[in-house]
Amino acid sequence: MTFSARHLLGIEPLHPVEITTILDLADKYVDLNRQPNKHGDALRGLTQINMFFENSTRTQASFELAGKRLGADVMNMAMQASSIKKGETLIDTALTLNAMHPDLLVVRHPHSGAVDLLAQKVNCAVLNAGDGKHEHPTQALLDALTIRRAKGRLHRLNIAICGDISHSRVARSNLILLGKMENRVRLVGPPTLMPSGIGEFGVEVYEDMAEGLKDVDVVMMLRLQRERMDGGFIPSEREYYHRYGLDAEKLAHAKPDAIVMHPGPMNRGVEIDGDIADDINRSVIQEQVEMGVAVRMAAMDLLARNLRAPKDEGVYV
Amino acid sequence: MTFSARHLLGIEPLHPVEITTILDLADKYVDLNRQPNKHGDALRGLTQINMFFENSTRTQASFELAGKRLGADVMNMAMQASSIKKGETLIDTALTLNAMHPDLLVVRHPHSGAVDLLAQKVNCAVLNAGDGKHEHPTQALLDALTIRRAKGRLHRLNIAICGDISHSRVARSNLILLGKMENRVRLVGPPTLMPSGIGEFGVEVYEDMAEGLKDVDVVMMLRLQRERMDGGFIPSEREYYHRYGLDAEKLAHAKPDAIVMHPGPMNRGVEIDGDIADDINRSVIQEQVEMGVAVRMAAMDLLARNLRAPKDEGVYV
Amino acid sequence: MTFSARHLLGIEPLHPVEITTILDLADKYVDLNRQPNKHGDALRGLTQINMFFENSTRTQASFELAGKRLGADVMNMAMQASSIKKGETLIDTALTLNAMHPDLLVVRHPHSGAVDLLAQKVNCAVLNAGDGKHEHPTQALLDALTIRRAKGRLHRLNIAICGDISHSRVARSNLILLGKMENRVRLVGPPTLMPSGIGEFGVEVYEDMAEGLKDVDVVMMLRLQRERMDGGFIPSEREYYHRYGLDAEKLAHAKPDAIVMHPGPMNRGVEIDGDIADDINRSVIQEQVEMGVAVRMAAMDLLARNLRAPKDEGVYV
Repeated sequence: MTFSARHLLGIEPLHPVEITTILDLADKYVDLNRQPNKHGDALRGLTQINMFFENSTRTQASFELAGKRLGADVMNMAMQASSIKKGETLIDTALTLNAMHPDLLVVRHPHSGAVDLLAQKVNCAVLNAGDGKHEHPTQALLDALTIRRAKGRLHRLNIAICGDISHSRVARSNLILLGKMENRVRLVGPPTLMPSGIGEFGVEVYEDMAEGLKDVDVVMMLRLQRERMDGGFIPSEREYYHRYGLDAEKLAHAKPDAIVMHPGPMNRGVEIDGDIADDINRSVIQEQVEMGVAVRMAAMDLLARNLRAPKDEGVYV
Repeated sequence: MTFSARHLLGIEPLHPVEITTILDLADKYVDLNRQPNKHGDALRGLTQINMFFENSTRTQASFELAGKRLGADVMNMAMQASSIKKGETLIDTALTLNAMHPDLLVVRHPHSGAVDLLAQKVNCAVLNAGDGKHEHPTQALLDALTIRRAKGRLHRLNIAICGDISHSRVARSNLILLGKMENRVRLVGPPTLMPSGIGEFGVEVYEDMAEGLKDVDVVMMLRLQRERMDGGFIPSEREYYHRYGLDAEKLAHAKPDAIVMHPGPMNRGVEIDGDIADDINRSVIQEQVEMGVAVRMAAMDLLARNLRAPKDEGVYV
Repeated sequence: MTFSARHLLGIEPLHPVEITTILDLADKYVDLNRQPNKHGDALRGLTQINMFFENSTRTQASFELAGKRLGADVMNMAMQASSIKKGETLIDTALTLNAMHPDLLVVRHPHSGAVDLLAQKVNCAVLNAGDGKHEHPTQALLDALTIRRAKGRLHRLNIAICGDISHSRVARSNLILLGKMENRVRLVGPPTLMPSGIGEFGVEVYEDMAEGLKDVDVVMMLRLQRERMDGGFIPSEREYYHRYGLDAEKLAHAKPDAIVMHPGPMNRGVEIDGDIADDINRSVIQEQVEMGVAVRMAAMDLLARNLRAPKDEGVYV
């Protein structure tokens, strides 16, 4: 077993071998999902609870389908904003759910670190479906799988992550994963949307798209997260598109076979030109969604195997 | 195979033989649903996604039960009104879902034609659960099954569709289906609630209930859709009930064994008298709901068979 | 068969032997839920519909998991407040759902008696998940199971139910159940939160916590239901906590091995001190949640057996 984690809280704690293990299994689930009969039984008899303290139609749907296709009993809980004011309440909610004996708990929460805190209080496997500006590990894993399938490898690639870096847990998890797998990552965006102290990650930072995209293999665009910008500089959409929106002209600086990615949902005409998004020779945006279901199936399958492993292996207490 | 369609977007594209095929299979599912064990496996291994851009507790529940009883992995997606402002977004949503490899996509949308548009973008079978004022094919099919079971046939019947015709996709789909099966359909209602150009359907139009109901076999009442009336004439409920609400006096003009139908939910005391609605000798309103689940099981079963058919038959690409 | 009921509408109609039957079966389901594979098939082929006219994340989740773990096809229906204005509408909703052939209907409703009314209109088994101030039978059953497992018996115990008695269906159902099983129940709380005519239940009433908790085996705290207080006396949280909030000092009046219960969700620092709630030597609050799933599995299993029983036994018509 090359995957011994009890939770999937972030990319940070994962060893490169564990990342490869998830991606290898996910490749098999891609095949399953393309069959007419796409129902397996890796999670049969287990209970999966999706607890979303923030709306996310897309991510929740992906986890829900992943669990149902593997035979889990899946339950969605819409957590109301009103019930998350106090830290105590999050813990009480966690303890209540834990008493119902879920095996897999998928959690999205607006506060960085909330999912880690919750994981300390429960007996089941916890999957972080995005917590504040911290991590979104399954997004980074699905991006990695998409890149590996498109490029044939997941190392020694030049990858540009572009746009609103500072508000993005997607950028953060990708930065960590792509670094662990020995790729060369550049961040491209306006200084106002670049997190302070980014130098410590050992990445190159560019303010200009033409320079930042030069000869890259992968262009990863981010959603402009206006809803997360509390005060400070908020760019106009027109100005932003002019300088940072990915169009054919800017993309021409990348390698001729560079792929274009976006975690969705897209703001067409803001961070990406619609024609680029729809160009099936360059854009792998739909593949990212497809890989998302497969990666979540793989992650839950592996965590469930650890749940069932003998206790003396120290995997599950 | 007498049903070769890839989607169920409306009654318009269906051949009478296809309609009969659906109803015949639905009859079998009525029997299944009356058993203690009402779980089959016609959709086992398949994924059904219900995408409702408009609330409809009743129709969504009917599709959800139909899919679950046939063993599909069923997922409901509550689509927020905010995400449907732009046509692009609908397409992006469709492409995103498509990438998750659903087999059956059940869609309700407030705009006529939106479901057809969406069907062009995806690889799976699409079922229209109501689009604007356009079509609501499973409603017409369940009405047809209810009539066929009550009257012993679905041709050469005199059928009056009464009330708010102009805002009703139910009326439109029924009109098409009942015409295809060679029935004589009359529309009864105030001129202000009658669509313009209705003459082209070759139906008789009545303004007076006594005349319109004379000697009919079937009285099909419609819900007064006040929520769809944007400007123009809005009748008072009292006045409407007086002239067009179905009560014992008006029903006396129909044949003595005429049945009473309503697609629900009812406005009692507006378009129908409560006593008539509850009269088990005349009203088949509960049967309509029962037939609804069976018809949806049949439609999804048939579409799934076509999905699985060999590609060289040209059914599924 | 020592459980012959067709519905579970309240504790009132249950015979002590029936209560014991449910609890005995629930004990077995506690064991199942603690297994890695926690999926049974007692409800396979059956349809369970959860109809919640009032929000209750916790109770609905418990019923949903219970049904899914026993193999039922489970459907949640969020009933909008707008559709329950008229009594007729409730009946129409019930008749509509009934026509879809559910086997188990789980209903929560803000009006006392609404669930009983609904049960008269349908052919399936109805479980009351809380109706107004009337009954909440599965809560009383899970409390009883928790007590029986902690104390080794469910008779001749001294039990104090404390706090906001007047707004609590939990208190009412517990009072009835614990009385039937021959326990001595005391009610403790301010006179303004004590229902009138409580004397007829033959219970002792205390205004002072020190006196009320003296030598009891079980301290059952209630949630302060500010949302149900329409006019009249509303205590300040600080004043309430001072006089009626359970803290170590007040608990010291109970027996040294007395257990502490709360139906959740808790108002920490209002009706209970956080440290008491978290004291694993005294508090059984998490066990209550665990027992909740098991009790609901047992209740639905038993009702389903009666559904399937031959009709000439008069159990199911």
